[in-house]
Amino acid sequence: MEPDKAMSPSSASSYTSSIHYDRRLYQQDIAGSIAHARMLARQSIISKGDAQTIVRGLKAIEKEISNGTFPWKPELEDIHMNIEARLFEKIGDTAGRLHTARSRNDQVTVDTRLYAKEAIHDTVARVSNLQRALLDLAQANKDVLLPGYTHMQRAQPVLLAHHLLAYFHMLQRDKERFQECYRRADVLPLGSGALAGVPYPIDREFLAKELGFARASDNSMDAVSDRDYLVEYMADAALCMAHVSRLAEELVLWSSQEFDFIRLDDQYTTGSSIMPQKRNPDFAELARGKTGRVYGNLMGLLTVLKGLPLTYNRDLQEDKEGFFDTVDTLQSTLEVMASMVGTMRVNPKRMRQAAEESYILATDLADYLVAKGVPFREAHGIVARLSVYAADQGKLFKELTLDEYRRFSLHFGQDVYQVTLESSVAARDVPGGTAPSQVEQALAQARGLLAKADTG
Amino acid sequence: MEPDKAMSPSSASSYTSSIHYDRRLYQQDIAGSIAHARMLARQSIISKGDAQTIVRGLKAIEKEISNGTFPWKPELEDIHMNIEARLFEKIGDTAGRLHTARSRNDQVTVDTRLYAKEAIHDTVARVSNLQRALLDLAQANKDVLLPGYTHMQRAQPVLLAHHLLAYFHMLQRDKERFQECYRRADVLPLGSGALAGVPYPIDREFLAKELGFARASDNSMDAVSDRDYLVEYMADAALCMAHVSRLAEELVLWSSQEFDFIRLDDQYTTGSSIMPQKRNPDFAELARGKTGRVYGNLMGLLTVLKGLPLTYNRDLQEDKEGFFDTVDTLQSTLEVMASMVGTMRVNPKRMRQAAEESYILATDLADYLVAKGVPFREAHGIVARLSVYAADQGKLFKELTLDEYRRFSLHFGQDVYQVTLESSVAARDVPGGTAPSQVEQALAQARGLLAKADTG
Amino acid sequence: MEPDKAMSPSSASSYTSSIHYDRRLYQQDIAGSIAHARMLARQSIISKGDAQTIVRGLKAIEKEISNGTFPWKPELEDIHMNIEARLFEKIGDTAGRLHTARSRNDQVTVDTRLYAKEAIHDTVARVSNLQRALLDLAQANKDVLLPGYTHMQRAQPVLLAHHLLAYFHMLQRDKERFQECYRRADVLPLGSGALAGVPYPIDREFLAKELGFARASDNSMDAVSDRDYLVEYMADAALCMAHVSRLAEELVLWSSQEFDFIRLDDQYTTGSSIMPQKRNPDFAELARGKTGRVYGNLMGLLTVLKGLPLTYNRDLQEDKEGFFDTVDTLQSTLEVMASMVGTMRVNPKRMRQAAEESYILATDLADYLVAKGVPFREAHGIVARLSVYAADQGKLFKELTLDEYRRFSLHFGQDVYQVTLESSVAARDVPGGTAPSQVEQALAQARGLLAKADTG
Amino acid sequence: MEPDKAMSPSSASSYTSSIHYDRRLYQQDIAGSIAHARMLARQSIISKGDAQTIVRGLKAIEKEISNGTFPWKPELEDIHMNIEARLFEKIGDTAGRLHTARSRNDQVTVDTRLYAKEAIHDTVARVSNLQRALLDLAQANKDVLLPGYTHMQRAQPVLLAHHLLAYFHMLQRDKERFQECYRRADVLPLGSGALAGVPYPIDREFLAKELGFARASDNSMDAVSDRDYLVEYMADAALCMAHVSRLAEELVLWSSQEFDFIRLDDQYTTGSSIMPQKRNPDFAELARGKTGRVYGNLMGLLTVLKGLPLTYNRDLQEDKEGFFDTVDTLQSTLEVMASMVGTMRVNPKRMRQAAEESYILATDLADYLVAKGVPFREAHGIVARLSVYAADQGKLFKELTLDEYRRFSLHFGQDVYQVTLESSVAARDVPGGTAPSQVEQALAQARGLLAKADTG
Repeated sequence: MEPDKAMSPSSASSYTSSIHYDRRLYQQDIAGSIAHARMLARQSIISKGDAQTIVRGLKAIEKEISNGTFPWKPELEDIHMNIEARLFEKIGDTAGRLHTARSRNDQVTVDTRLYAKEAIHDTVARVSNLQRALLDLAQANKDVLLPGYTHMQRAQPVLLAHHLLAYFHMLQRDKERFQECYRRADVLPLGSGALAGVPYPIDREFLAKELGFARASDNSMDAVSDRDYLVEYMADAALCMAHVSRLAEELVLWSSQEFDFIRLDDQYTTGSSIMPQKRNPDFAELARGKTGRVYGNLMGLLTVLKGLPLTYNRDLQEDKEGFFDTVDTLQSTLEVMASMVGTMRVNPKRMRQAAEESYILATDLADYLVAKGVPFREAHGIVARLSVYAADQGKLFKELTLDEYRRFSLHFGQDVYQVTLESSVAARDVPGGTAPSQVEQALAQARGLLAKADTG
Repeated sequence: MEPDKAMSPSSASSYTSSIHYDRRLYQQDIAGSIAHARMLARQSIISKGDAQTIVRGLKAIEKEISNGTFPWKPELEDIHMNIEARLFEKIGDTAGRLHTARSRNDQVTVDTRLYAKEAIHDTVARVSNLQRALLDLAQANKDVLLPGYTHMQRAQPVLLAHHLLAYFHMLQRDKERFQECYRRADVLPLGSGALAGVPYPIDREFLAKELGFARASDNSMDAVSDRDYLVEYMADAALCMAHVSRLAEELVLWSSQEFDFIRLDDQYTTGSSIMPQKRNPDFAELARGKTGRVYGNLMGLLTVLKGLPLTYNRDLQEDKEGFFDTVDTLQSTLEVMASMVGTMRVNPKRMRQAAEESYILATDLADYLVAKGVPFREAHGIVARLSVYAADQGKLFKELTLDEYRRFSLHFGQDVYQVTLESSVAARDVPGGTAPSQVEQALAQARGLLAKADTG
Repeated sequence: MEPDKAMSPSSASSYTSSIHYDRRLYQQDIAGSIAHARMLARQSIISKGDAQTIVRGLKAIEKEISNGTFPWKPELEDIHMNIEARLFEKIGDTAGRLHTARSRNDQVTVDTRLYAKEAIHDTVARVSNLQRALLDLAQANKDVLLPGYTHMQRAQPVLLAHHLLAYFHMLQRDKERFQECYRRADVLPLGSGALAGVPYPIDREFLAKELGFARASDNSMDAVSDRDYLVEYMADAALCMAHVSRLAEELVLWSSQEFDFIRLDDQYTTGSSIMPQKRNPDFAELARGKTGRVYGNLMGLLTVLKGLPLTYNRDLQEDKEGFFDTVDTLQSTLEVMASMVGTMRVNPKRMRQAAEESYILATDLADYLVAKGVPFREAHGIVARLSVYAADQGKLFKELTLDEYRRFSLHFGQDVYQVTLESSVAARDVPGGTAPSQVEQALAQARGLLAKADTG
Repeated sequence: MEPDKAMSPSSASSYTSSIHYDRRLYQQDIAGSIAHARMLARQSIISKGDAQTIVRGLKAIEKEISNGTFPWKPELEDIHMNIEARLFEKIGDTAGRLHTARSRNDQVTVDTRLYAKEAIHDTVARVSNLQRALLDLAQANKDVLLPGYTHMQRAQPVLLAHHLLAYFHMLQRDKERFQECYRRADVLPLGSGALAGVPYPIDREFLAKELGFARASDNSMDAVSDRDYLVEYMADAALCMAHVSRLAEELVLWSSQEFDFIRLDDQYTTGSSIMPQKRNPDFAELARGKTGRVYGNLMGLLTVLKGLPLTYNRDLQEDKEGFFDTVDTLQSTLEVMASMVGTMRVNPKRMRQAAEESYILATDLADYLVAKGVPFREAHGIVARLSVYAADQGKLFKELTLDEYRRFSLHFGQDVYQVTLESSVAARDVPGGTAPSQVEQALAQARGLLAKADTG
C-alpha cells in the first residue's frame, strides 16, 4: 500500500474546523461585533453610517441563525468566518471595516467569556434548584430518623434532614466557587488585538459597559492566551460533580432492596418488563458515571496549557469542546438530581428500623453510665461487654431486661429505657449537630441563604 | 421562583439517550443480530423461517441506514431500540424472537467490541502510515546532519534520519500495544445474557466464528461489565498521543524563525494576509493540543470504573463517547501528522549551520586527545579551557589556528581539523548509534518491520 | 519585605535532588556498573586489572549500603553520584574509567528498567496470589448462592463462585498486560551514551546478556528519552486498581449490616471500643481510596511527556517517584486484598435469604410458561402481573398457592414449585454461565491458568 | 508456592499507617488539643486542674517533637495516636479526658485545616515573590524590545516588560483563588464528633476564636467528610503550575542557542564538564515537569471522592499525602522560579535583533498606507507583495530603498523609514497595550497590587 503524501483537502480542513461546536457562540459573536462597531463609530474610527450598516447586517444574520435559515458553510471552519462571510454577502465591503482594531485572537475569547458568564449564571441557578429540592425534602420529613453511617457501618442515629443538609452545604460552597469564577470571567479582552494591543484610539471602557463586563483586561498578551476562567469553571464543576456523585451513590444504595430507604419516582427508574419490582436507578447511576467526563475535561484542558509559550497558540482552540460538554453535563445532571430528589418518596419506617436493629445507642448508654458517675473508660468497657452479650442473645438493647442490664452494672436503672434514638439525637445539641432544635435552625438558615440567592 | 418538581419528559429522556453517538454502531448491531438469529435457528431455538425473516429485515434496515432513509426516532434513545422497533414495523412480531437468549447487556458490548476491533485495525494502519512518512523523509535526507539536543541545548551532531527513527520506534511500540489490546477485544460476550448466562442451548463457538471473534468470554458476570478493552485502547492512545505531541512540538520549534529547520507545506500552515512569511503551524499545534482530550478521555473512563460493584450498572453507558472521541482524534491526528511529515521540506543548510555554530565537537576533541595518550580527565580540562577561549574570541573550533590549539596542548596536530561533524557522527558506530552505517542498517530494519506489518 | 534574589544553595539543590527516592535503585546501579566494567575490559577499552578493581569496589559499596554503613551524602543529589563519589574514595582515579562509553542518560534508564522488570515480576506474583485467594474461596463455597446484581438491584441468582471468578478473569487480563509490558521494559539502553551512541567498540549484546535483558535498544535518541515502560506499567496498574476497587466496594457493601454477606477477619476491620459490632472495613476502604493515587500518578507522567522535544530533558527525572509509589501501592494493595479475601468468612444463609426474599425468579417463571407453550410476550405479561400481585400480598413466589398461580394462567401446575434458585442457576448451562457444571469447569480452568503461571 | 492466608501484622499495619507523612501535623494537632482542653474546662466539662495538666503535657510533647527527642512509635500508626499515647505516659489517665466531646473524625480535619491555612498563606507569599521578581526584571529592562509571538512565530514587537507583566497577571489571579480557598478552609469542624455532633455543652465559638478560625462549620455530617478545601487548593495549584510551566518553557527556549535571549544564573544551570557553553536549564525543566505531579495529585483526590457515600470513610485518609506533595512542590517551584527570574540576565541585543530580522512591521506598514488614504484591503495587498519581494531579495523592510518601496505604492514616502519597532510599540497605546506609556502605568499598578498584598 502506498501512503498518500497529503491528506485530501476536506479531511485536512475538518481537522482544524470548529464550526460543529462553536456555532453555539453565535449570539455572543454578534453581540461582540455590534458593540465593537458602535465603539468604532463613537471614536470616529469608522463612520456612523458604516456602523449602522454593519449592525443592521449583523442583526439580520442573528435572525437567520435563530430561525434556522442561515446558510452554514462548513468549509468556513468556524462561527466567526461564517458570520463574517455572510456579512460581506449582505452589506458588501463595509463588512471589512468591522475588523479594524480587532483580531481573531481577542474576538474568540470575548465570545467565550460572554458564554461562560451566562453558563455560570445558569449553573448557579441549577445548584440552587437542587438545594431547594433537598431542603423541601428535609422539611417534609423533619422528624424522620435514620442511621448515620461511617465506613458504611451504622454509627449514630441522625435526622434525615440533617443528612440532607450536609449536601446543601456542599452545594453552597460550589455556588460560592462558581460566583468567584464569574468575577474572573467578567473581564473584557477586546482591544488586545492579536497580542500587543491595537493602534487605534479605541474606548475599552465603553466596550466593557456595552457588553456587560465589569472591567477591561490588564495586559493584552495575557488576555489573548488566558483560559483560566474555563479551567476554573471545569475545576469547580469537577468538585460539584464529586458532591453530586456522592448523593447519587446514596440514592442508588438507598434504592436497593437491602436498604429500601427510598423509592425513586417511576420516571427516574427503568425496570424489566417482567420484574416490575426491579427499579433500576438509571438516572442516579448516570449522574454518578458522568462525573468521569467532567473530571476528564478538566484534565484535558490542564494538559493543553502545560508548557505552552506565550501568546496565542492554536492548541487553545481545544478549550471549548470540553468546556461546553462540562457545562451541558453539569447542568443537566443538576436538573435531573433536583427532579429526582423532588419526586422521590422516603420510607421512614425502614430508615427507623435500620437504626433500631443495631447497637448504635452504645455510645449513649456509655454516656448514661458516665452521667451516673461511672468513669468514662469503665463505662465504655461495660457497654462493650453488654453489646457482645446482647448480640449473642440475638437481642437489641431495648429488648434486654433490667436484670440483664444490671448483670453488667448496677448503675443501670429503669431510666435506661429512656435512652432512645430520639434521646440520642436530641443530645447532639450543638451548633451543626443533629438535635431537632439545631436542625430546625439549620433549615431556617439554609432557607435564608437560598432566598438571598434568589434575590441577590 | 418556584422550582419544578420534575423535569419535562423530553429533557429527562435526553439525559439517558445515547442515540446521537451510538448510531455509529449500526453495522455492528445488525451483524450481531444476524449472527444471533442464525445461531438460534441452527440450534432449533427459533425456526429457520423466522431466522430468514429476521435476517432479511435486518439487512433491509442496514440498507436504509446506509442510504440515509432510516426513520430515526430520538425518543427511542439508542441504536438498539431504533433498530428493534423498526424490525417490528417491518416483520411484525417475529422480530421479538430475536431477543431470545440475549439481553441488552451482552448485546451492547458485542457491538462495541466489534467496533473496537475495527478501530484498532485502522489505528494500526495509520500508525504505519506515519512511520512510513518518517522513514521516507529519513531516506530522502540520509546525509543531513543536525544538532542532537539534550535539555534543548545542542549536544552532539546526529543524522536527521537517526532523529526521525527515534519516532519510528516509539510508534512501533504503540503498534505493539494496540495489537495486544486487539487480542483482548477479540472476545465474544454474547451468550452472557443479562449477567448469568442464558437458559437456552446456544452455540457460542458458532457465534464467535460467525462474528470473527477469536473466542468466547469465560465468565458472564465479567463479560457484561468488562470495559477493559476500551480503557486499554484509550491508555495506548494516550501514550501514542504523547509521542505525537513530542513530534508536533519539534515541528513547531523547527518551523520557527529561530530554528528554521523545516518548511511545512502550505496546506498545514496558516498565515496572516499581510505577513506571508508568517507560517503558523496550526496543524502541529492542534496535534499537540489534542493530546489533552485523549488524556482526559482516559481519566474519564477510569473514573467511571472506580468503585463500581458488579455487574452491569448504567454508569457504563459513559464508556462510548470518550472512546469514540479518542478513536477519531487519534486517527485524524495520525493522518495529519503523516501528511505533514510527508510534505514538509527540510532545510539541510540551516540544520548543519546550527550544528557548526556551536561547540558540540568538544567531546570529540577530548576523544582526539585521549587517542593521543592524554588521560581522560586532563583531556576534558584542556578542551573545557579551549572552549572558553574560543567563545571569548568569538571563534568556532574550526576557526582556531593550530597555534591557538597548541597553546592548550601540544598534542594537538594538523589532524585536529579532521575532527568534524562527519567524523563525530561516524564515530558513534555502535548498534543504535548515529553512525551512517548503523543508521543505514536501522533504516533497512525499520523498512522490514513496516513491510511485515503490511503483509502480516 | 525584600525578596531574596537567589535561593540559598541548600534549598536550590534540594529542588533537583532525587537521592531520597532513587537510593532504592542502588542494586540496579551497581549491577549495571559491574556489567559495564566487565564489558569494557572484555573489549580492551579498559584493562582487566582496572575492571577488577572497579568491580571489587562496587561490591564493597553494595555491601555498605545493604548493611547500612554507607555514608550517604545528600548534597550529592542522586544515587549515581553517591556511588561514584564513594568509588573514587575507595579505589581512586581508576573509578573514572567506569565512565568511559557511558553517560548519565543511559545509566539512569538502565537502572530504572532493571528495577521495573523486578517490579513487574513481583506484581504478577501478587496478582496470582489474589487470584488464588479468590479461587480458594470460590472452591470452599462452591454451592453458595447469592443474588446477582445489575444496577445494584437483585437480578438473577448466581453461584458465589461464579461471582468470584469474574474477578479472577479481570485479574487474568491484568497479568497479561503486565507481562506484555515486561517485554518492552526488557530492553537494554546502555550504549546509547548521552543521546547519539558512544565512540567506543562496545559490545551491547554482551551487556544485555550480562544484565539479563532480552535485547539492546534500536535507537539511541529514543533510548535515552523513552519512558514508555513506566507509563505502561502505570496504566496497567490503574486498570488493575480499578478492578480491585470494584472488589473492595463489594467487600465494603457486603460487610454492611444491610447486606451482611461476609465477615472480614478482625485484622482487617477496626471498630469502636464501645461498639464491638461495628466492624469498619478500613482496609477495603483504603484499597478503594488508593485507586486515586494510582490514577493520579499515571496522569502525572503523561503530563510530563506531553510536548517534550527530544532527547533527554530534566523533566524526565519526574518519572520515578510516581512509578515507585504506584508499585508500592499496587503491590501492598494486592497483598492486603489477597489476605482479606483469604481470611474472610462468607454468610451463605444471608446470601441465600437475599436471593429468596425477592422476585428474581420472575424470568424463570416466564421460561416455565414458554416451555408450556405460552408465547414469549404473553408469558412475560402474566409473570409481571403475578409479581405485582405477590408483592401486594406481601408474599414471595414460593409462598403463593397453586390457586393463586392459576388465577394468572392455567398453564401453571404443581411443577411450578420446582422453579427454584437452584433450577434457575442450573438452567444457565452455557459456557461462561453460572450453572454448577459450568462453574466447576471454570474453576478447573482457572486453577490450570494459575498453575501454568506458577511454573511458567 | 502456597499463598499466605494472612499478611504479617507489620505489613498489614503499614498499609493503614500514616505516621510517615502526618507527623508534620504535630503542631496543629497539639494546638487543637490545647484549645479543646481549655474549652472543656471553661464549660466545666472537665476540671480546670485537669485542663492545666493536659495543656502542660501537650506543651512538653510539642517541645520533645520540635527538639527531636520524641519517642515515635510507628506501630501507633498516626500522629494523633502517637501524641495521645505519649500524653498518657506523661500525665496518666487524665489524658483520657481530652477525648471527651471529640472524635478522631473531627480531630483529623481540624488539624488539616489549620495546616492548609498556613500553607495557603505561605503559598500566597511565594506567588508574590515571583511576581516581585518579574516586576523587578521588567522595571530593570523597561526599554527592551523583543518579538511577541503567536504560534511560536514572530508576530509583533512588544516590550519585554509587557511580556513579563502577562505572567504577573496570571499569578495575580492565582493569588485571588488561593485567598478565596482560604476563606473556605477557615472553618472549624471541631464539635462535629464522629458525625452527628457531641452530647456535651461545648462552646464552638470559643474554639473557633482560640484556633483562629473565622467561624464554625454548619453541619456535622458535612464537616467530617468535607475535603473541598484540599481539592480546591490542589486545583488552584494545578492552574498556578500551568502558568509556571508556561514561563518555564519560555526560559528553556530563551536559553537555547537558537533564541539566546537570556542567560540563567550558573546556580540554575548545569553543564557538561567539557562543554562550558552548554547551559542546561535543569531547574526550569524540573519546574515544567513537576506540573505533572501537581495535576496528578488533583486527579487523585477527585478520584477518591467520586461516589463516596456519607460520612467519614477511611478512603479519606488518602487526602493528605497528595496535598502535602502539592504544597511542597508548588512552594519550592515558586521559590526556584523567583530566584531564577531574579538572577537571570537579559540579552537585549539578541531580543532586538530577533525583532528586526523579520517582517513583523508589516502590519504597521499597512497602517502607514491606510493613514495615507489607501483603503485597508488594498494596503494589505501592497504590503503582502512587498514582503514577498523583500524576502526574495534577502532584505529586511528597512533595507529596501525608497525606490523599491515605491514600486509597490507611490504612497510610500521618506517617512516610511520612521515606521520602526519603536513606532510600532508606541502605536499600541490602549489600556492593556504594549505602548511604553501604558506599560509604565501597568508597572505602577502592578507595584501597587503587590504593596497592597504585603500590607493587607
